[in-house]
Amino acid sequence: MSIKKKIQVCFSSNQFNMFADGISTVVVVDLLRATSVISTAFECGVEMVIPVKTLEEAISYKKFHNHIVAAERNTIVVEGFDYGNSPFHYIDSDVRGKNLVLTTTNGTKAIHLAKDHKIITASFLNIDAVTNYLVNDNNHVIILCSGWKGFFNLEDSIFAGALSEKLLLTNNFTANCDSLQASREVYSIAKNDLFGFLSKSSYRRRNNSNQVIKDTEFCLKPHIKSNIVPIFVDGKLIKSKNGSTT
Amino acid sequence: MSIKKKIQVCFSSNQFNMFADGISTVVVVDLLRATSVISTAFECGVEMVIPVKTLEEAISYKKFHNHIVAAERNTIVVEGFDYGNSPFHYIDSDVRGKNLVLTTTNGTKAIHLAKDHKIITASFLNIDAVTNYLVNDNNHVIILCSGWKGFFNLEDSIFAGALSEKLLLTNNFTANCDSLQASREVYSIAKNDLFGFLSKSSYRRRNNSNQVIKDTEFCLKPHIKSNIVPIFVDGKLIKSKNGSTT
Repeated sequence: MSIKKKIQVCFSSNQFNMFADGISTVVVVDLLRATSVISTAFECGVEMVIPVKTLEEAISYKKFHNHIVAAERNTIVVEGFDYGNSPFHYIDSDVRGKNLVLTTTNGTKAIHLAKDHKIITASFLNIDAVTNYLVNDNNHVIILCSGWKGFFNLEDSIFAGALSEKLLLTNNFTANCDSLQASREVYSIAKNDLFGFLSKSSYRRRNNSNQVIKDTEFCLKPHIKSNIVPIFVDGKLIKSKNGSTT
Repeated sequence: MSIKKKIQVCFSSNQFNMFADGISTVVVVDLLRATSVISTAFECGVEMVIPVKTLEEAISYKKFHNHIVAAERNTIVVEGFDYGNSPFHYIDSDVRGKNLVLTTTNGTKAIHLAKDHKIITASFLNIDAVTNYLVNDNNHVIILCSGWKGFFNLEDSIFAGALSEKLLLTNNFTANCDSLQASREVYSIAKNDLFGFLSKSSYRRRNNSNQVIKDTEFCLKPHIKSNIVPIFVDGKLIKSKNGSTT
């Protein structure tokens, strides 16, 4: 019998230094909306996603052939950028074969924070693919909730609960982590109506535009399923399936 | 109608810098066991509690008349100290009129971390007194979970949920805080059997001695109720009732 791999949940990006070990696989989650957008963009045919930390760095890619630039700050598309952080920006346009340069308030920062680890990104679009990937992977797992500007948020921790649940069900993993346990409990309450549950969240109170509501519904219950596991290699997220990059 | 005061929950001591505002009242929680011990010690007649950060500082008080010194590290009484972090150390001996010098792994550190704020300590012994105190107090509230060495823990966050619940019921408070919401949800699952619920916690997995189990049962469901709100003034926790120091 093989030894079970350990899963931990880190509730916010500024706690990550306490979890970092340089050897675990880090699953970055920014459910509303960066990691859902990344899965959507790949499903819409984007070739790679380049997550960058600053607006300046993102805009510098605009001159390159075949690159599209997307930037969101505080849930709003930044002026001068082609796209923002809505999955429908990608569903509703032709992005096949493009390289997407993306900077967001929390998710892209979390990816860079964990860059000394193997990093993949997860959302409800690719939760099953991510589960398979981690089962086949040899590493322990840290689920890194991007949170909101360093704070805990409900949406990422609910997703962490959902993913932990799936991983533990495979019998390949073990957990002794209070934040994982809490995320499973909260997910168990929320799961039958994620959108309704999150009406109490800070995210929903900050964002009540029709667009964000539509995006939120999509991210929580996507009509697109993705078999692609975005993996961060040399500063870029590229497509991986079942544990090997394509 | 008076304006409602804000409640926030900070899940661990090393997140506190993001919540610190210098004006809120900070409720320090280290349920297992420091803040439960503090309430117990006051109920057993201790005059004041001096929370100190280091063992060296604690032991230096041993020479003073009327002082008893208590130290716990990783749940164990430190050699050379009179008492540890078990409430029964105080229940089972005569500590009336003494000054208790206390250093623990997490709770006493959290108190010092918040020292630029008005600080009180809370546990299930004095949860009702703390609720009354905060209703009569003019400040916003930050519930500071001491956590475990900077990490989130289930026991403190469950208590934060219980206290938030009581405060919100008074109609004097408002909350827009995801960690508060999560703590309420977890408390709602845990409340009918706190001891059973915490069997999944890291604390319980680390500590399975008969003494710690007995302590845990007491801290979760104390047979002593306390009307004393310990308040931190000039480096010492002194007794306060209903908002004014005695």
